[in-house]
Amino acid sequence: MTKTLCELAGIVQGTLVGDGSVVLRGAARAEDIQVGEITFAVSQKFLAIVEDSPAAAVIIPRELTSAVKPAIQVDNARLAFAKVLEVFAGSPEYEEGIHPSAVIAPDADIEPGVGVGAGSVVEAGARIARGSHVGALSYVGPGVSIGEGTVLHPRVCILRGTCIGRRVILHSGCVIGSDGFGFVKMQDGSYYKIPQLGKVVIEDDVEIGANVTIDRATTGETRIGRGTKIDNLVHIAHNVTVGQNVAIVALVGVSGSCNIGSGVTLAGQVGIVDHVSIGDNVVVGAKSGVSKSIPRDTYVWGIPARNHAEQKRITAVMHRLPELAKRVQKLEKRLGEGNHGMATHD
Amino acid sequence: MTKTLCELAGIVQGTLVGDGSVVLRGAARAEDIQVGEITFAVSQKFLAIVEDSPAAAVIIPRELTSAVKPAIQVDNARLAFAKVLEVFAGSPEYEEGIHPSAVIAPDADIEPGVGVGAGSVVEAGARIARGSHVGALSYVGPGVSIGEGTVLHPRVCILRGTCIGRRVILHSGCVIGSDGFGFVKMQDGSYYKIPQLGKVVIEDDVEIGANVTIDRATTGETRIGRGTKIDNLVHIAHNVTVGQNVAIVALVGVSGSCNIGSGVTLAGQVGIVDHVSIGDNVVVGAKSGVSKSIPRDTYVWGIPARNHAEQKRITAVMHRLPELAKRVQKLEKRLGEGNHGMATHD
Amino acid sequence: MTKTLCELAGIVQGTLVGDGSVVLRGAARAEDIQVGEITFAVSQKFLAIVEDSPAAAVIIPRELTSAVKPAIQVDNARLAFAKVLEVFAGSPEYEEGIHPSAVIAPDADIEPGVGVGAGSVVEAGARIARGSHVGALSYVGPGVSIGEGTVLHPRVCILRGTCIGRRVILHSGCVIGSDGFGFVKMQDGSYYKIPQLGKVVIEDDVEIGANVTIDRATTGETRIGRGTKIDNLVHIAHNVTVGQNVAIVALVGVSGSCNIGSGVTLAGQVGIVDHVSIGDNVVVGAKSGVSKSIPRDTYVWGIPARNHAEQKRITAVMHRLPELAKRVQKLEKRLGEGNHGMATHD
Repeated sequence: MTKTLCELAGIVQGTLVGDGSVVLRGAARAEDIQVGEITFAVSQKFLAIVEDSPAAAVIIPRELTSAVKPAIQVDNARLAFAKVLEVFAGSPEYEEGIHPSAVIAPDADIEPGVGVGAGSVVEAGARIARGSHVGALSYVGPGVSIGEGTVLHPRVCILRGTCIGRRVILHSGCVIGSDGFGFVKMQDGSYYKIPQLGKVVIEDDVEIGANVTIDRATTGETRIGRGTKIDNLVHIAHNVTVGQNVAIVALVGVSGSCNIGSGVTLAGQVGIVDHVSIGDNVVVGAKSGVSKSIPRDTYVWGIPARNHAEQKRITAVMHRLPELAKRVQKLEKRLGEGNHGMATHD
Repeated sequence: MTKTLCELAGIVQGTLVGDGSVVLRGAARAEDIQVGEITFAVSQKFLAIVEDSPAAAVIIPRELTSAVKPAIQVDNARLAFAKVLEVFAGSPEYEEGIHPSAVIAPDADIEPGVGVGAGSVVEAGARIARGSHVGALSYVGPGVSIGEGTVLHPRVCILRGTCIGRRVILHSGCVIGSDGFGFVKMQDGSYYKIPQLGKVVIEDDVEIGANVTIDRATTGETRIGRGTKIDNLVHIAHNVTVGQNVAIVALVGVSGSCNIGSGVTLAGQVGIVDHVSIGDNVVVGAKSGVSKSIPRDTYVWGIPARNHAEQKRITAVMHRLPELAKRVQKLEKRLGEGNHGMATHD
Repeated sequence: MTKTLCELAGIVQGTLVGDGSVVLRGAARAEDIQVGEITFAVSQKFLAIVEDSPAAAVIIPRELTSAVKPAIQVDNARLAFAKVLEVFAGSPEYEEGIHPSAVIAPDADIEPGVGVGAGSVVEAGARIARGSHVGALSYVGPGVSIGEGTVLHPRVCILRGTCIGRRVILHSGCVIGSDGFGFVKMQDGSYYKIPQLGKVVIEDDVEIGANVTIDRATTGETRIGRGTKIDNLVHIAHNVTVGQNVAIVALVGVSGSCNIGSGVTLAGQVGIVDHVSIGDNVVVGAKSGVSKSIPRDTYVWGIPARNHAEQKRITAVMHRLPELAKRVQKLEKRLGEGNHGMATHD
């Protein structure tokens, strides 16, 4: 597929600067750009790199201009670039219809236009709405409901009773609705399993990464709010509630009954203890350990997680800790001398 | 299904206080409770919340009494609640028999009453004992043995030669018996693979979470002791031995040849270096990094993990570290003045 | 299978010391050794343990001698042991041919001698070279290419367009080619998905652990260099480049667009922020958080990761931090007294 720069300017509703007849055959990040492709730059610095590259054209913010490349000026260069990538990606090639090797329960309710891939299993009472696609070797458990336009990539596992919204994207290997980790510790040290009877609800427009696990509630719901995006290998425990438009980066663990507000960002490898509330728009820095509730609109970091600015000051001093210890020793020595032989420490 | 409070009191062997004829149609945590359901409370504080809820009845410790709700008094309210959840859960609906789409090796030994789900593969020499269930799309490798009453949820993967005990629960996506991460580093920097010929043994009553990985031993066994419970996304390396009734929370990594005692708790995201011994009943706090062996009956925390009380004191001082640095500077300044101009640091 | 010690000495090109007619029926680590088996020892200390064991023979470095066991002296005892394990392991039993339950696209190009396991799915345009094996219930997406002699263990998932080299080993549950975690944050707080059009390239002789996830590039490639070994539950984000002979231990997360040099070691649970370069031969200690680029040939550790020796000094002082705080307080008190009542802190 090819597009002229003029056509792309129309699609992203940008301002064409330069030769609109340039023919583009693809789009790429500046690092990957090849002859005939369009890229983007969000700053003068990146634009300079693009101008030295073989890029055929560039998408830039309205405040920039390129001396050497035909350009499209837009309000949001990243967004326009995403839309240009969509153009070159074309429509995804999901085949409609149920592959003959799929095993579908007689009473599963699969709407017309749904695709079910090879080797998939759809259990009794499952409902899959129009425009959805179930990738190969996926499992859709009893009573699961899947909204319109949702995509299960190959080898997704949705267990009994889970409700999945519309336009949700589930990546390979994720497990939605496994049992929560709930036990009663007995006097003899053994653990007695607490039945996990609740379910998982995934709201509209959520994206869930590869090999993520989301546990069903003990009773009630584990809920992932609308528009939330979850990276790979994240663990969400039972009875957690995640708000809207939350970003959860890879290898995060959220313990049971936590309440994560909307607009929150949890960076990579963060851990949150159970029964904690994270307020709206909180940012938790990478590798932090959250041990208590965090008020909204704060940026925390560290183990345990503290106010980010404070943690930065602590980290800066930690860097000089061996020196600080020596300085204290020197003071003691000096003071010891000044005080005629009083004992010093260490 | 419905039960009277009187019937439930009998099932949990508790003392009925109030109207035993109340009809219950379910059980739920206090947060999720709906009209007609029973819940539990472990303290006066939680009981107060329950009393303001629509709960129809409540399970409480013997030392509590409810002024407003019919109640069952028991020794262990959590345990009685788990048992009431079991009542309302009913028996799990595992179908017996081998689904026609499953692929079973001719010499696999599957006892009567076993269920094998759609699309599963059972390889040569595998033995599956009565009352067990293999979920859809699961893989049971050559020579695997599975004891009585064990449940593989859909999409479990048990590799060659693994021995699984009785009443074990394996959640979706777990991989038992993958190769250990063992290589010889060569002079040219490349890695030469050490064949991994050992196996994994999972003892009775173990539960293993979604997307967990447990590697086979190089030679000998990787062994998970009776009654141990492992949360999601945990990694257990080759030749690890885990004792009985151990609780391992999500995203923990246990390196090769570690020896974990019985009754141990490893909280979320803990990491343990290789060849370390963790004594019986040790508790390792969340996110800790264990770099050396830990004696039994201790509670450790931190990176590196130290005695918990000590780590708490360290963490408390770290909080005041920037202030401490300023105080040292002030002392130096004062002392510098007092000592007629001797150089201060920083 | 049995071998004489003399035969094994020939296979590993070692020097036989003692009775070469000893018949060996297996090999094992010293901890697992049984009568009739051969083991290895890399030091006098381990040799002493072996000499007290039932081992029938021992592989040792050329500088050691065993007083009591027949032995093979070699340059590299670990390597020789790995080769002896190979002997007793025999050839892996991969069946050739396509299992009748596998679903193969008509235009998939599967060379003679390839094995495709039960329930696997191979999509349109996929190419699988001779000597490769696709384990049961695996997914090979559209346009995937797999080089000679590569092994996919059961339940591996390789998504659209991925290129896998020769002699690669992919363990169960790994997902190669899932979408990168790329979004544009909109003014209303929602996330707009950036299409992920790039691919993943896995070079020759790579080994990838169970339930690992490697995301495709936004545009261009995510690339894992020749000979690199990745342990279980590791996450490699989009557009990451990993060099040759890198070792990545379990539960590591590498963020987007990182550049990892050759010969690097990332220990367990390390996290690396995005757009960072790690030089050749860098070692990153367990649980470290790398927040900026690391020059080659360095050993770093900590959160944030620092020079290892420096971090060790910091950790040593941290251990004494509560004491240090008390010493400062004491100095203040003393100095406060000496200066006639000037205010002290805290």
